[in-house]
Amino acid sequence: MGLMKDLPSIPKLKKLAETPFDLTKEGALNPKRAKEMSAEGCGIKFLYGTERVESKVMSALFELAEEAQVIDHIRAMQTGEIVNKIEGFESEERMVLHTAMRDFFSDQPLMESASKEAYAELEKLKEFLVDLDKLQKFKHIVQVGIGGSDLGPRAIYLALEAFKRPDRTAHFVSNVDPDDAARVLSRVDLHETLIVVVSKSGTTLETRTNEAFFRDKLKDLGLDPKDHMLAVTGKGSPMDDPSQYKASFYIWDFIGGRYSATSMVGAVMLTFALGMDKFLDFLKGASNMDRLALSENYESNLPLLGALLSVWNRNFLHHPTLAIIPYSQAMVRFTAHLQQLDMESNGKRIDRQGKPLDGDSGPIIWGEVGTNGQHSFYQLIHQGTTIVPVEFIGFAENQRGIDIEVEGTLSQEKLLSNLFAQSIGLATGKESENPNKVFTGNRPNRMLLSKRLDPYTLGAYLSYFEHKVAMTGFLLNINSFDQEGVQLGKVLANQIIDLFAKRRSAQPIDKQEFPMGQFFINEINSL
Amino acid sequence: MGLMKDLPSIPKLKKLAETPFDLTKEGALNPKRAKEMSAEGCGIKFLYGTERVESKVMSALFELAEEAQVIDHIRAMQTGEIVNKIEGFESEERMVLHTAMRDFFSDQPLMESASKEAYAELEKLKEFLVDLDKLQKFKHIVQVGIGGSDLGPRAIYLALEAFKRPDRTAHFVSNVDPDDAARVLSRVDLHETLIVVVSKSGTTLETRTNEAFFRDKLKDLGLDPKDHMLAVTGKGSPMDDPSQYKASFYIWDFIGGRYSATSMVGAVMLTFALGMDKFLDFLKGASNMDRLALSENYESNLPLLGALLSVWNRNFLHHPTLAIIPYSQAMVRFTAHLQQLDMESNGKRIDRQGKPLDGDSGPIIWGEVGTNGQHSFYQLIHQGTTIVPVEFIGFAENQRGIDIEVEGTLSQEKLLSNLFAQSIGLATGKESENPNKVFTGNRPNRMLLSKRLDPYTLGAYLSYFEHKVAMTGFLLNINSFDQEGVQLGKVLANQIIDLFAKRRSAQPIDKQEFPMGQFFINEINSL
Repeated sequence: MGLMKDLPSIPKLKKLAETPFDLTKEGALNPKRAKEMSAEGCGIKFLYGTERVESKVMSALFELAEEAQVIDHIRAMQTGEIVNKIEGFESEERMVLHTAMRDFFSDQPLMESASKEAYAELEKLKEFLVDLDKLQKFKHIVQVGIGGSDLGPRAIYLALEAFKRPDRTAHFVSNVDPDDAARVLSRVDLHETLIVVVSKSGTTLETRTNEAFFRDKLKDLGLDPKDHMLAVTGKGSPMDDPSQYKASFYIWDFIGGRYSATSMVGAVMLTFALGMDKFLDFLKGASNMDRLALSENYESNLPLLGALLSVWNRNFLHHPTLAIIPYSQAMVRFTAHLQQLDMESNGKRIDRQGKPLDGDSGPIIWGEVGTNGQHSFYQLIHQGTTIVPVEFIGFAENQRGIDIEVEGTLSQEKLLSNLFAQSIGLATGKESENPNKVFTGNRPNRMLLSKRLDPYTLGAYLSYFEHKVAMTGFLLNINSFDQEGVQLGKVLANQIIDLFAKRRSAQPIDKQEFPMGQFFINEINSL
Repeated sequence: MGLMKDLPSIPKLKKLAETPFDLTKEGALNPKRAKEMSAEGCGIKFLYGTERVESKVMSALFELAEEAQVIDHIRAMQTGEIVNKIEGFESEERMVLHTAMRDFFSDQPLMESASKEAYAELEKLKEFLVDLDKLQKFKHIVQVGIGGSDLGPRAIYLALEAFKRPDRTAHFVSNVDPDDAARVLSRVDLHETLIVVVSKSGTTLETRTNEAFFRDKLKDLGLDPKDHMLAVTGKGSPMDDPSQYKASFYIWDFIGGRYSATSMVGAVMLTFALGMDKFLDFLKGASNMDRLALSENYESNLPLLGALLSVWNRNFLHHPTLAIIPYSQAMVRFTAHLQQLDMESNGKRIDRQGKPLDGDSGPIIWGEVGTNGQHSFYQLIHQGTTIVPVEFIGFAENQRGIDIEVEGTLSQEKLLSNLFAQSIGLATGKESENPNKVFTGNRPNRMLLSKRLDPYTLGAYLSYFEHKVAMTGFLLNINSFDQEGVQLGKVLANQIIDLFAKRRSAQPIDKQEFPMGQFFINEINSL
């Protein structure tokens, strides 16, 4: 676990992990325990009575937080210190300032210069949208981006689609698979469509290829691409060329892709589709949670509680995965965003000093919305041999205000009943004479509850997870802000692309040039 | 591993697993090895040179297959023996005959009575569709179902959407979350919409609730629900009431939900949207793979190869998860279907004699399409501390025939280059002076390649996975066909639904009645 092994709380926690709290004992899970093990902030209740912890474990985890100086690190992050680095080795050496993208709601922004720049872009966007409204021309927007330029913005749009302007719709193209762009093309009329191309580096293979695709199709219709294309990119990137775009918006090197949803990366598409007011509500929810993440009052610092319980489950109880399961159909792609956020941040092999970890880095994140998952993979999470901790999310009310009473209850009440039942059943299990009907229980889970999935609340959830992930990194002494692990694939892919290019242009290919690449190309050719 | 421990090949395999083949050695991965470790059938090439196996491991795995009598069990399954059972305990005691649903393409069906019944339903459906075509009224179909009545049919529809009739579109409602149905309602005109309600038991909470929702909305428009609603259910179920539906189609107790996509569960929606011919192509691909799965020639029995390599990675090398990653945007929900198929089938705690397993049951299945995942969770699969085996799927050609050449290559070629690069890079890794740029490699993966994702090929893939999962069950001595693990949640949910119902009707609730259920309801109320 990186340097964690040197912290005094570590042996204590290891000892405690030998006999984790037994949730299956008669009466072990009861309302008193559940009430005590709860916290609340930014409209989110955090209930963790169904985790395998008790007060002595929580105390030891708070000691760990103290020793690892987690809150100090988060404050350093939010105030613009260089936290994206590996000491003693070449690394990105960058600030990490996604929180500054929404720090507009107090008189004292924590990193004023960055927030000013961000706000200026937002003002520019606001003016652009006012002019656009006057045109009354554009009904569709296509977000062209991949990874952080796709997953977060897409998940947020889908989660808030119930609040969108009825005259506007967003679409998404990410994959270099040409069928992805072709599918969206079949659904929009390009005459009334904006294309927002999002790439910080301005060189992302998939995104630039799909941009070229849409430029071609616009020209085929006799349209000027410049009237339809928007850019979101870093200043000075190959895409920073306002002569090619109707408008250009900027991001900075201190905004990591997977942390970029509240920057212009998400803002252009979301404000077009939802309107500026709703986007500002969303930012406000995020900003309020950003402040809560700085709280030294550990018992009510929700992201810290989430991070500590995740570390307990992953690094002390050794559960390799975490399922994140919202009981809300609108959050259908939110777990995919969190999968990127967490696994790209904390799926590492070295610590912040460049030494190989002697324990595990972050978990594998996966999941689908409930109740759907109940009819799918829940068999394994109830009775499989690998324990899967679960982070549940639920809402008292639905979004669209349409419901039906069947046999005395609303659908929303049935949805919540299932959520509560799963949390309890996973924890307590059930005995039976028939071995196939035995549930061994002790499957740790926690639940986050809010009144309704609205823009403010979604912003708070986004920031909760962003901070939970960063805090986990600081607890494990991992740099959660780089992604060297994606580089090898890019290098090898470019070598194979060269082989394909030579083949297309009938250039000779040396037998020694990447033989395994040639092998796969031959296999494709012989199909 | 259940009874597996008593098989002579087990100690041999355990010994071999202590020193698995090292893919990172200079020249270890080369075209000769890759060619030798390949097989082909039903238009699918199966390449496993990037797994951590060598010929002595494959021989030992084939011994395991022989000792576990896997092919005999599969033949027993396909010919209608009772394979869904736990010996010595009350269990479902059913035949498992999804293969009979498509065994129409030879003179000798393996289970004639079941195939005759299935074919009769298909004939009935054909006539219904011909009459429907004459009406020229219906443009939309909404599949209302959950779990097996949703994931498979939805994944198949999306995978084949490029082949659909331009005048018809399918939609899906699964979740009891009322926002799910409300969202689909906002997208269709019910006057021109069919609703197909799918539930084998006819009692599925989510499905019956959503059925009631749509009946209400049809009535609100002055429409007769009977003119718009179709039923797919078991004979004698509460839904087997033709007076309530425009047409009713049947399934049987020998069709498990997660294995039901080629039965009427998928057929009604898919034939409406794609046409009967395409659906028959799809069935033919599945049926051909069903026959290949019976082959005693282990080296070319693709599902058996897949099952043996999965067992090697999961039960001997102890990797807890398997990522399934198609490099095809159209397969965007296929992994979600496979997640259900595999985890509900093999996420068990007892063997087929009711004894607790002494090893692991099946893995956690997860994944997204490539190249998208490369910009997301690939950081962890390249550099994380938990090894993630990967099953890749790729296609030589795209589906829609629209592509663009940028810098000398087509998008499809870039897509394939990335696929090949990932397979190679995960296997071989890469050394570096900078510890953050070190890739340790030896991350096992395999690749399935076909010419194009068409109905026939998709059918072959579906059957490949269905058999791989069932064979894994027979190898591990698990009953892959029941799902007792989903029962506890249903029982507890109904108890909480009762609490909500009492609250709605202002009935008194005893303090002793499910206190934890009351706790959660109170938490929701205080939000």
